[in-house]
Parts: sequence; C-alpha cells; structure tokens
Amino acid sequence: MKSTYTKLQDRISAVGNCLCLGLDPDISRLPTGFSADISGVRRFLLTAIQVTQDLVCAYKPNLAFFEGLGIEGIRLLMEIRSAIPDTIPLICDGKRADIGNTSQAQAKWLYQHLGADAVTVNPYMGRDAVAPFLADPDKLVFLLCLTSNPGSSDFQRQRLQSGKPLYEFVLETASAWAGYPQLGFVVGATASELNQIRIIDPQRVLLVPGIGAQGGDYKTSVSQAKNHEGLAVINVSRSVLYANGDPEDLSPMPDRIRQIIGTI
Amino acid sequence: MKSTYTKLQDRISAVGNCLCLGLDPDISRLPTGFSADISGVRRFLLTAIQVTQDLVCAYKPNLAFFEGLGIEGIRLLMEIRSAIPDTIPLICDGKRADIGNTSQAQAKWLYQHLGADAVTVNPYMGRDAVAPFLADPDKLVFLLCLTSNPGSSDFQRQRLQSGKPLYEFVLETASAWAGYPQLGFVVGATASELNQIRIIDPQRVLLVPGIGAQGGDYKTSVSQAKNHEGLAVINVSRSVLYANGDPEDLSPMPDRIRQIIGTI
Repeated sequence: MKSTYTKLQDRISAVGNCLCLGLDPDISRLPTGFSADISGVRRFLLTAIQVTQDLVCAYKPNLAFFEGLGIEGIRLLMEIRSAIPDTIPLICDGKRADIGNTSQAQAKWLYQHLGADAVTVNPYMGRDAVAPFLADPDKLVFLLCLTSNPGSSDFQRQRLQSGKPLYEFVLETASAWAGYPQLGFVVGATASELNQIRIIDPQRVLLVPGIGAQGGDYKTSVSQAKNHEGLAVINVSRSVLYANGDPEDLSPMPDRIRQIIGTI
Repeated sequence: MKSTYTKLQDRISAVGNCLCLGLDPDISRLPTGFSADISGVRRFLLTAIQVTQDLVCAYKPNLAFFEGLGIEGIRLLMEIRSAIPDTIPLICDGKRADIGNTSQAQAKWLYQHLGADAVTVNPYMGRDAVAPFLADPDKLVFLLCLTSNPGSSDFQRQRLQSGKPLYEFVLETASAWAGYPQLGFVVGATASELNQIRIIDPQRVLLVPGIGAQGGDYKTSVSQAKNHEGLAVINVSRSVLYANGDPEDLSPMPDRIRQIIGTI
C-alpha cells in the first residue's frame, strides 16, 4: 500500500495544485434547493465531492461539524471515505490526543472506522500522546504547531527561556519523533513566521488553513509553505463550499476553486 | 437550573467523597459473563453505573473509548446521560478545542447531544478556542493544565522567559477567562506541583486523574487538590471498572470504591 505521503505527492502531480477542500457542513448555509436537515447536508456534501474531485489534492472533514449534527452527522462522516476516490487523501481533522491507551482508541476511530489517511493532532500532552497516531508508518500526522486564530498568541507564541517561541520548540522537539514523510505540521502563520519555519525545517509537509474565508492568498501560501519536494496542503473550506447561493447548480464551486488556484 | 458547580457541591456533600468514576469501556477487559461485543459493553457499563451510583460524585466517560468501538459505541455514549441520575454530574472527557465556530460545534455535540454537565478542553489554541465551551455559564469546563503522563514534560513543564513553567502560565492566563465556579483545571501533578497550584489559585476545581491504575492515592489527592470549599474531582477508571474478574457479580466494583475512599 502507498504511504499517504506518496499518495499526496502523486495526487499533487496529477491535479497540479496543493488545494485541499475542507468539508465543514453547516446546515444553516446550504444553498437553496438543499433541505435544511441531515439528508440535505448529505446530498450537498456528496455533490460537492463529485463536482470538485478532479480539482483538489485532498479532502479534510473537520469532525466537529459532523458531531454537531448528532449521530446522523457521525454516520455521514463514516460515509465520506467511500464517496472519495482512493487516490485522494482523506485528512480527518479532529485535533485529538490524550494519554497513550486513549490516543490508541482515537487512532482506531480515525484510521479504521473513518478511513483517514491523515489526521491532525494536538501537541500539548507530549510525545506519548502523539505516538499512537504514528504507530502506522503509512499515515500522515499533522501536529498543531502555529494556528491562525487570535488565541495562537496566548500560548503558542510565548517565548521559552531559550528565546524561542513555544511553536518553534514544538516543531523542533516533535521532529525527533518521526521522519518527514510521516509527521507534518499545521501552520497558519504570517509570511515571516512561515519563512522562518521553512528555514528550520525544509522537509515536513505543512497543512495551512486560512485561505479564502480566512483571508489568505493561495499562490503566496504555496510558495511559502511548500517543502523541498514542492508539497504543501493549502486548505479552503467555507469560501468554496458556500460560494453558491443558487439552487441545485453547484458549478460555482469548481469555478471558485479554479479562481483560487488561478486557472481561470 | 443548577449550575454544574452547585450540582457537584451538593453531590459531594451527599456522598461524602470526591471520587469520580471514569467510564472507559475496553472490550478486551470485560469480566467473564459479559460478551466481548457492543451488547456486552453496554450491559457492563449500565450495570457499573447501577452498582456505583450511590458511591461516586461524578461520572467521566472518555469519548475516545466509545469512538474506538465505532458508531455503536457512540450510540452507547449517547445513552449514558439518561442512565445516570440527574443529580450526578456527567463530565464528557474529549479534550477538544479548535477555532471558534468549530469549538462551537464541539460544544453543541458535548452539551446538547451527549448531555454533558462538564467537559475537558485543550488550551493550546488559546482563548477564542476555549470561549465557546464557556458560553453556557452553568457548565463546568476543565482546561488541561498539567497532565500525569510522561509527555507532560515535553511542553507543559517547559519554562517561559518569566521562569514560570508553561502549565502555570496556562493556569494564570486562563483564570482571567471565567470565574472559579465555571472554569477548572485538569491537574495530574506531583505533590509539590499540586501544592504550588493551590497556592496560586485556591478556588478553581481541579480534576485529578491518575488514581488507582495510574498509582495515586485518593486521600492524599483530595487533601492536596480540594479548593477553598472542599471540592475536588478525583478520577479513577480502570482499577475500579476492571477490579472484577468474576462472572456476573459486580460487587467487587463498589467494594473497590469503598477501599479507595477508605470506608472499608
């Protein structure tokens, strides 16, 4: 079986871009023509996957938006893997991590039940909390490093006694836990921080949120975030998913992707 | 409606102890007489709640162990609240947190769908990631401060430029986000660290893991961890749940609790 890193590499070559579509279902924002209930959400997501699957390098469902819909939302989350071609990596974004045997149960949920090729993990509890997600060497683990929300200044940007900000120390420390094709980082940074991160580590794959609705620019993000082999995962969610206000016709969705990646 | 803090206070008065039972279903450790499948887990957990409900101050299901069982495990998790008397607080231990609208969806899952009175939250993403869990002033939010696993040294114990360890800075910073009855902390600390934390903040409720299977001692933990009103939540999971090797008869479970709290 191909590792997720190789799958991502092949996929980025095939589509010629690093754009990942975040699947964040919001029942109150479905286009007209989709019922504001779980069956509407289901049809909307499956259609969104259908019309975008030739354009994106990965899909990233954020688990919370499915959980927020209750048990039927979680059931829908379990359908996502089979709705996506095998060649496209599925990143299950849950930002989990707990003590060892608990992280092991989380990894089972994400990898076995949801079919995740990659996951996002929170570093606060340290190495043994992250290790169970790294137990399968074929998966790709994105550890939170520096996030794009205002609260990233509260702790992530605090300087340690060495003078380094915490997020940089997380990057350096965790890099000893697994090789570059297996462990990457979530980085929603300013240009100068992203530049600094790439100097420290030119190899790790970075998952960059914050394009589109959150205001970033795709081309700049790719050029700043790509690793030594040209790989990066630049996520866009709401500004593509909810680009469309019209009933039934979802063509604005692929067009919006083409606008972002600059092919129209 | 009573706040969770008041509910916990009343409950601790009623049972005369601060012991919380962690509900961490492990299909491979069910006593003989329980089938090693979801129906066995279900019967085991519901029986465990039945035989322990006069003895404990709270229940704490760790979401990961239910998720690890797949959709039927999650369905069982949704039954837990109705199986527990309303007077006993339910702490949903998921260690979540994400950017604002995502944390909001997580809070909806935990509070509305699972009926949580209290939750555990990860501080790494900062204030706006924690805020949605604090939006309901009646709930109790336990923010991870210092955990009991080896990996707690990787980041939580790192010293900032002020000389303070990160966990202490998390405690002080987050204390400005909500009053003491609403925001507490998860602290699995050494005696001297716990002592230091109580000096910094004598009011917040502490959720202490690590009793029993993880080696702590209940009475010492209570005396070190209790707040100015005598409240603490001391969790025990596996050493009570899996105390029993015998078929059907679960009396070892309450006896094990009485041993831990020192009433037999």
